[in-house]
Amino acid sequence: MNNLLDGIEEILLMGPGPSCVSPEVYSALSCKTLGHLDPYFLKIADETKALLRRIMNTRNDFTIPISGTGSAGMEASFVNLVEPDDKVLILSNGVFGMRMQDVATRLRAKVEALEFPWGKPVIPEVVEKKVRSESYSLVAVVHAETSTGVRNPVAEIGTILKGSDALYLVDTVTSLGGIEVSMDDWNCDVLYSGTQKCLSCPPGLSPLSFSDRALAKVKARRTKVPNWYLDLTMIASYWDQNRIYHHTAPVNMIYALYQAVLLILEEGPERVFQRHLEAHLALVKGLEGLGLKMVVEEAFRLPMLNTVHVPEGVDEALVRKRLRNEFKIELGAGLGPFAGKAWRVGLMGHTARIENVSRFLAALKHVL
Amino acid sequence: MNNLLDGIEEILLMGPGPSCVSPEVYSALSCKTLGHLDPYFLKIADETKALLRRIMNTRNDFTIPISGTGSAGMEASFVNLVEPDDKVLILSNGVFGMRMQDVATRLRAKVEALEFPWGKPVIPEVVEKKVRSESYSLVAVVHAETSTGVRNPVAEIGTILKGSDALYLVDTVTSLGGIEVSMDDWNCDVLYSGTQKCLSCPPGLSPLSFSDRALAKVKARRTKVPNWYLDLTMIASYWDQNRIYHHTAPVNMIYALYQAVLLILEEGPERVFQRHLEAHLALVKGLEGLGLKMVVEEAFRLPMLNTVHVPEGVDEALVRKRLRNEFKIELGAGLGPFAGKAWRVGLMGHTARIENVSRFLAALKHVL
Repeated sequence: MNNLLDGIEEILLMGPGPSCVSPEVYSALSCKTLGHLDPYFLKIADETKALLRRIMNTRNDFTIPISGTGSAGMEASFVNLVEPDDKVLILSNGVFGMRMQDVATRLRAKVEALEFPWGKPVIPEVVEKKVRSESYSLVAVVHAETSTGVRNPVAEIGTILKGSDALYLVDTVTSLGGIEVSMDDWNCDVLYSGTQKCLSCPPGLSPLSFSDRALAKVKARRTKVPNWYLDLTMIASYWDQNRIYHHTAPVNMIYALYQAVLLILEEGPERVFQRHLEAHLALVKGLEGLGLKMVVEEAFRLPMLNTVHVPEGVDEALVRKRLRNEFKIELGAGLGPFAGKAWRVGLMGHTARIENVSRFLAALKHVL
Repeated sequence: MNNLLDGIEEILLMGPGPSCVSPEVYSALSCKTLGHLDPYFLKIADETKALLRRIMNTRNDFTIPISGTGSAGMEASFVNLVEPDDKVLILSNGVFGMRMQDVATRLRAKVEALEFPWGKPVIPEVVEKKVRSESYSLVAVVHAETSTGVRNPVAEIGTILKGSDALYLVDTVTSLGGIEVSMDDWNCDVLYSGTQKCLSCPPGLSPLSFSDRALAKVKARRTKVPNWYLDLTMIASYWDQNRIYHHTAPVNMIYALYQAVLLILEEGPERVFQRHLEAHLALVKGLEGLGLKMVVEEAFRLPMLNTVHVPEGVDEALVRKRLRNEFKIELGAGLGPFAGKAWRVGLMGHTARIENVSRFLAALKHVL
């Protein structure tokens, strides 16, 4: 039979994820599969936990990859921490804040959304007023809004929440590995990410960490977690030294995640963040040189996700199609109010290199 | 830094899964990552759906891989089809029947379990009496009970349910690709599997199929699916021609699944099933030659999962440890009432070969 895999071309992935994968991570993916209870695999699993702790800057023992994509990390966080009628506050300024509202509402929580305009950051002073006037069991925010390219002030929000009863949840799907993530310094209780953004590993896992305070809340639940697959009380007994079978861990994806995080730590997180920043600055300079305008104000821009206005009269879908077909470059479309009006240029992980920026700018110039 | 992946040895996987992976599937895993909305990736995704339909013997359009392991397929099936107070009947004779009860109970269904002894099959006449006396919205059974090695009479149960209002759910996690699965002929509405058993692909995805009747039930729900990540009404709009972003598909795992199913279809399902059967018969002959006794009666044995009693006075954990360390063979432990009392010998997919059986028997003989 004709094998479609033979026709896969190497595409420069400059959309909102997945990002380009390094040769070492591809090799890791195809290491020989071991049993999920094999002692050597469990050694790799333990070391993966340790590497994740380092990159998240946390001492939380419960730091593991969830067996699903980044959204499974979001689902796992809410389904374990929220019980019916719990009051949850979502700080929302894009698609992923909206997604949190949808997830929490389905769990019958009392969900309030504090909304900020798309393309603008969450404002700490407004949050402070809100959390002083009402009490919540959980306050949630997205660090790097992939739909807009905005960086939210998660450290400042953590300071505001210090001493409150509310658990503090931060979505770092797009930020982890590209800008600093300091879970413990942020006073953060719940954090999750995805493998396919700045970790530069194929999609499929969601690194997640719970503080002891968050775990205590799960253990004190009045009702069973209404999701067997993502029940962290059971999953914890596989990832701790009890090794109780829950579901079969995605062995090869865990190899790839181990390798991807190891690469970042070997290069040095500071150097990796600098590489993202330099690529971003070169991109912005180049885009502005082509007469294009960035969507987000300079102070709140993410280096790894750059939203840029589509110039008047340009068929944005055609530009993306030509970049893909003629130049083997993937560019992201706009979402929500930016659909058809902005592009999203990803500079995530292995993709975040000056030479990729140059290649992209040259191609875009040609197509425009 | 020291890289643990360099120390991975090739182990002959003869436990309850994962099974050995063929070289072609390892290569597929490390094909270049494409975007989850890339037109060429979507072509591979569509073809994966078509290949899954062929191996499941179904015409259901909604036949896709769920982005999680086999248990995520179970969770997705129940969470989409069950609403609070729905009456659900689980035919249970092992760990995975019990798991279904736990999953459905968490969704606040009225769950009844019709229980049969572990190591014995579900008896159709008992099922018939039960479903004639009460009406259920869903009846669920496991085709191949991985915890005991029993094959349940799923075709006969399907015949009994024909014409009833109950949806018929069959778990084929361990059977798909090793023995015949005929979803449409069985009158089956819901079927899911896992990649790491007889499909011989690393763990991480759950192929799933819903009949039109099952989809109609999802569409007629009074309440939103209480699980955003596994909401099939949203996931369907990515896998159909609308291509609406829900979560990022696990691109490389889908390559591997595509390749794994293609290999089975190229070898020919009948030949693959015959290979499983021959390996199984050689294994049973060899085990009996060593004086060991099988747990399951001949008529209900699964070829891919063989439960055998641990002989009196033998330290079963030590035997498994020595097989792993001295012979590089993984053997499975017993579960539930069989913990410490039986071994589970897997002959799944790429593992199911006479030469592997011979290697295993020689090693076991040496260790005993």
